[in-house]
Amino acid sequence: MEIKSEEKVQLLPADELGLRLGHVTAAMRQGGIDAMLLCDNANIFYLTGRVFCGYIYIDSDANIRYFVRRPSVLHGDGMRTVRKPEEIKALLSDEHLSFDTLALELDDVPCSVVLRLAAAIGVASPMNASAVMRRARSVKTDREISKIEASAVKLTEVYRRIPHLYQEGMSDIELQIEIERNLRLEGCLGQFRVTGHDLEIFMGNVLTGENADTPSPYDFAMGGAGMNPSLPVGADGTIIKPGRPVMVDMNGNFNGYMPDMTRCYIVDEIPPEVASAHSLSCDICAAVAQNACEGASASALYELAAGMAASAGMADYFMGHRYHAGFVGHGVGIAVNEQPVLAPRSKAVLQAGNVIAVEPKFVIPGFGAIGIENTYVVGSTGAARRLTDAPEVIASLD
Amino acid sequence: MEIKSEEKVQLLPADELGLRLGHVTAAMRQGGIDAMLLCDNANIFYLTGRVFCGYIYIDSDANIRYFVRRPSVLHGDGMRTVRKPEEIKALLSDEHLSFDTLALELDDVPCSVVLRLAAAIGVASPMNASAVMRRARSVKTDREISKIEASAVKLTEVYRRIPHLYQEGMSDIELQIEIERNLRLEGCLGQFRVTGHDLEIFMGNVLTGENADTPSPYDFAMGGAGMNPSLPVGADGTIIKPGRPVMVDMNGNFNGYMPDMTRCYIVDEIPPEVASAHSLSCDICAAVAQNACEGASASALYELAAGMAASAGMADYFMGHRYHAGFVGHGVGIAVNEQPVLAPRSKAVLQAGNVIAVEPKFVIPGFGAIGIENTYVVGSTGAARRLTDAPEVIASLD
Repeated sequence: MEIKSEEKVQLLPADELGLRLGHVTAAMRQGGIDAMLLCDNANIFYLTGRVFCGYIYIDSDANIRYFVRRPSVLHGDGMRTVRKPEEIKALLSDEHLSFDTLALELDDVPCSVVLRLAAAIGVASPMNASAVMRRARSVKTDREISKIEASAVKLTEVYRRIPHLYQEGMSDIELQIEIERNLRLEGCLGQFRVTGHDLEIFMGNVLTGENADTPSPYDFAMGGAGMNPSLPVGADGTIIKPGRPVMVDMNGNFNGYMPDMTRCYIVDEIPPEVASAHSLSCDICAAVAQNACEGASASALYELAAGMAASAGMADYFMGHRYHAGFVGHGVGIAVNEQPVLAPRSKAVLQAGNVIAVEPKFVIPGFGAIGIENTYVVGSTGAARRLTDAPEVIASLD
Repeated sequence: MEIKSEEKVQLLPADELGLRLGHVTAAMRQGGIDAMLLCDNANIFYLTGRVFCGYIYIDSDANIRYFVRRPSVLHGDGMRTVRKPEEIKALLSDEHLSFDTLALELDDVPCSVVLRLAAAIGVASPMNASAVMRRARSVKTDREISKIEASAVKLTEVYRRIPHLYQEGMSDIELQIEIERNLRLEGCLGQFRVTGHDLEIFMGNVLTGENADTPSPYDFAMGGAGMNPSLPVGADGTIIKPGRPVMVDMNGNFNGYMPDMTRCYIVDEIPPEVASAHSLSCDICAAVAQNACEGASASALYELAAGMAASAGMADYFMGHRYHAGFVGHGVGIAVNEQPVLAPRSKAVLQAGNVIAVEPKFVIPGFGAIGIENTYVVGSTGAARRLTDAPEVIASLD
């Protein structure tokens, strides 16, 4: 039988793997970590270009090994098939791979999985590999940036069609469903990868009218009641009305990497309150991007955004009204909530290669949610480069 | 401002909450657990009928308290707003709620969350609340069963339309996208709640042709290569061909509770190999349902299914061909993979109120995936009651 390329455990070219291992091992050394055993799907995808069920061993000398449970058809250098993690210790020992300190993904993996792995390897106090991987993944390689950019091109194409998808009398969810279909036909995978056990969303968020002011349990920028209390976020069936903006923040995952982009749409005239809030959002995005270069402080960028909102008398509506989200931007990539986070108490300093979504949004009672979101690549100097090229104006749904 | 009903922390009627607390506290006493602190969304939904961000305290005397972080608008008896879990210990102490043994959701919640909660409460060795909740949730109340049944009615209605959604020359993913749209328009929430950090899927699985024989990393009954190695499961763009079955196993979550149902479709004539495998699948479903009453052994039901496949000379194709799934059925409810699991080494004994999906499927090289899946309620005597009422025949796509 011919072996498909997808059956290789390692789909990344050697030079790309080398770059990523460089990021990871630098973060390991910084944390005093000799070795890591990873099993989170996002981290496995980062290090191989594919998802499998199993474990990746990495040490600070950039040795990498793959212990695959499923699918059984994979093959490749450094790969061994295992039935259970208890087999790994002997396999590492056979190769004389040893370590003093081992890290596991404490923030990503259930406690019982961590306890089993720690016992299987014989480590009493595992360090935190999640922190290492968050740091490493926050600086994207050129190949990763090109994946995000490719997704952004497709997302932009679907957003362009949104006015044609609208029909008079539609509800938020009905419009969302047509956007979902167009995204899927364009190749969107649908999956919204998030970090954190308590975040849930389905394909994105379309908000209009008072629903935008309904706080949700989830730590996203915007809320909404949702269609059911089992998933209380987003569209709730509100009919789209003239003069009330429709905020569209939909899934851009076309290849495992997702940009994040929000645009607003409206039926009929744009009320002056909506126009000015939207204009302010665009101005804040531009100002943050202008200042988002290597060395910039993530908290200072948040303060820049919040300060512009306050100066315009819009502090009460900035990042929500009944509830205010505690950030104005966040890293994106394999997951929608990566590092750095642009938040008041963030200690992060931007690095070239960070990819950040900036989303200064307003919720104004009586009108709804207004604002845009763009995804940018941070450079070593100068303004961050915008990856989400849809026009920023409020587009007409007529 | 008027308070919406959705803003109550507890949406379940008192008698329903009482039934569920009865299940939970019985499982706690069986495990020697005095109290639990829960924060998994599925468990919070089970105990309140809604999702919030925060914690539920339950003790074996059926005291229940809600510590809510988000949304801040909730209110209700026994509810306190908290900013962080470190506030909970004092709040419990104020109410003289004490315990010797405390359980946390070790299988559902990341290690660092468990460690933080254990430190916040002052418990050195938390017991496992995940096991308690799995056991409690495996026996559904009448209200839960009616939710699953209501979802099944809508899922059946969408499956009925599938022949009308097909157009000549479509690929698996193109048909899937039209099914997704119809499900969403019918009220499907889209979200596929699963238990386990490494399970991922988007809205379901449509398989045709050789793709059905591609093993995936995920512990679902069937595989498929998927559209991208970042999510390697399901439809891969294969064109639907005459005489090759299309297996549809799509998301039935319309209200937080999901039945699981698979049906097959075909263009043109049904080849005899396909007809006989399909007939065998229907026979196995019926036989398992006939024997699935209180007291039946989950492993015996698996052996019944596997034995019927073997007797028909179909063991090589049962539950896959290049890879064989290790089960023929599983509990469903809030998550798609609940207890009990019908698997060879399961120790489970069926109880009245279990809701199980039974999916004896075959993958035959050259033809693809064939078989059905039904969801049943287990009763105290007699055959399990089928909740998924779509006709079992292979429907024509012409």
